[in-house]
Amino acid sequence: MSDTPVTVLGLGAMGTALACALLKAGFRTTVWNRTAAKAEALAGEGARHAATVAEAVEASPLVVVCLLDHDSVHDTLAPVAGALSGKAVTNLTSGKPRQARELAAWAADRGVDYLDGGIMAVPPMIATPAAFILYSGPRDVFETHRAALDAMARSEYLGEDVGLASLYDIALLSAMYGMFAGILHAHALIRSEDIKAADFAPMLGSWLNGMSGAATGVAARIDQGDYAQGVVSNLAMQEAGFHHLLETAEEQGVSPELLAPLAPLMTRRVADGHGHEDLSGLVELLRTRA
Amino acid sequence: MSDTPVTVLGLGAMGTALACALLKAGFRTTVWNRTAAKAEALAGEGARHAATVAEAVEASPLVVVCLLDHDSVHDTLAPVAGALSGKAVTNLTSGKPRQARELAAWAADRGVDYLDGGIMAVPPMIATPAAFILYSGPRDVFETHRAALDAMARSEYLGEDVGLASLYDIALLSAMYGMFAGILHAHALIRSEDIKAADFAPMLGSWLNGMSGAATGVAARIDQGDYAQGVVSNLAMQEAGFHHLLETAEEQGVSPELLAPLAPLMTRRVADGHGHEDLSGLVELLRTRA
Repeated sequence: MSDTPVTVLGLGAMGTALACALLKAGFRTTVWNRTAAKAEALAGEGARHAATVAEAVEASPLVVVCLLDHDSVHDTLAPVAGALSGKAVTNLTSGKPRQARELAAWAADRGVDYLDGGIMAVPPMIATPAAFILYSGPRDVFETHRAALDAMARSEYLGEDVGLASLYDIALLSAMYGMFAGILHAHALIRSEDIKAADFAPMLGSWLNGMSGAATGVAARIDQGDYAQGVVSNLAMQEAGFHHLLETAEEQGVSPELLAPLAPLMTRRVADGHGHEDLSGLVELLRTRA
Repeated sequence: MSDTPVTVLGLGAMGTALACALLKAGFRTTVWNRTAAKAEALAGEGARHAATVAEAVEASPLVVVCLLDHDSVHDTLAPVAGALSGKAVTNLTSGKPRQARELAAWAADRGVDYLDGGIMAVPPMIATPAAFILYSGPRDVFETHRAALDAMARSEYLGEDVGLASLYDIALLSAMYGMFAGILHAHALIRSEDIKAADFAPMLGSWLNGMSGAATGVAARIDQGDYAQGVVSNLAMQEAGFHHLLETAEEQGVSPELLAPLAPLMTRRVADGHGHEDLSGLVELLRTRA
């Protein structure tokens, strides 16, 4: 049994997975949920079931919060602010950078240590090597509670700026949804010819793995603000090829809607004199304020 | 020196790379280009420079075509149809499935063996392990000329249906563009906080590699037409999270335009009663004809 007790607030699928991981790693774990049934189930696994948030918070120096959304977090913690004073809250509820900063300011005013987190996993992945959790906020709070955090998933500490965990979380998910949109479009094309998706999928997977390395080149160009360096396939050529790709979708009876928004960005960037540059220069057009 | 001579028509960056790979592998290589200068440069590397298309076609039983577009291929080959009779044309010019089928029908009427190809590489990658070329058309033609084809890149033969190479080519490129759109959006978010792109890129790359495995699960669901099987994160939950992701972009001063088209598809699919299913069911909404 590890010496630092941990409290988990919120026992949805994710909160339950986190509490189970903590229990399995030997942490004295207290759980609370708005509806009691889930907490009672976990009590069978060795968790202490707190009847109230106040009782749950009282039980441990580290309070892991995994609720529905930002408002639930605020509404759950506000009445127990006094009891939280001097303790650490690690909020793993999905949120935005602005919301993390609001909660951190609220916590600081009440003497509560606040660490924000972003879980990069679905519940069945918790405590497996595939899962990781992003953290941002005071490094000493992270280090103090690291053993408990590591019991839930690999911990990735990003820095003192408390907004970073949700920023990285949402950036990674955004990239994933872009890739999924591409995968859906590709499969729609393949099935337009009655080919089995499984016949195409292995090639698609290894192709995307090979191409994801491009992320490194993109980063170097963005950091240097130089999109003309070492270009092998310039934007003007890609723009022409891309229209051809959208037309093919239409000919095959596939809606090009998921990929279509790249076309006007390419056209604008070429018209602005960047046709000799790399595709990654499009990032300049995504900024909506200076 | 290998025994089968090969002709390459078209010496843009890609045609030049292909001809160089053939020369390097010891094939007697004849080249032709609309403007002669590029062919003369390759003559210095050991290629035979044909002054006319007819002369180029005459020189070899295998004619590799790598021109600007479909119309250039047709316009270049039509006048020499007689000379091509009994020979094999491997067309590596970017095109659509419909265009490949048109050229194959044209070739069949003239006693020309026609193989269509899609090059999955940029010119500097030719003849490196990272490159591959998709082929479709008569298997015996592919097998007869396999040594020359393998000298240019790893050969992936897809089947007798001549439209397959360009269909797979465009499907793979489509998926890549989706992934690139996601990468661009992610980097736009990261730079909204003045974080170095290079600090984020390694995590992004390994995250995308981990997630590209999802392509396999997507394929199984599509083939079975069962999007409800083994769902860990259902569409209704993802729809809610996705709106939150688009809102975050706006709060960070990033245009959500590249990812936005996923949202109405998710909403429609949930409204149609598929909220308990996997995201991959969206593929059903991309079909524009029955």
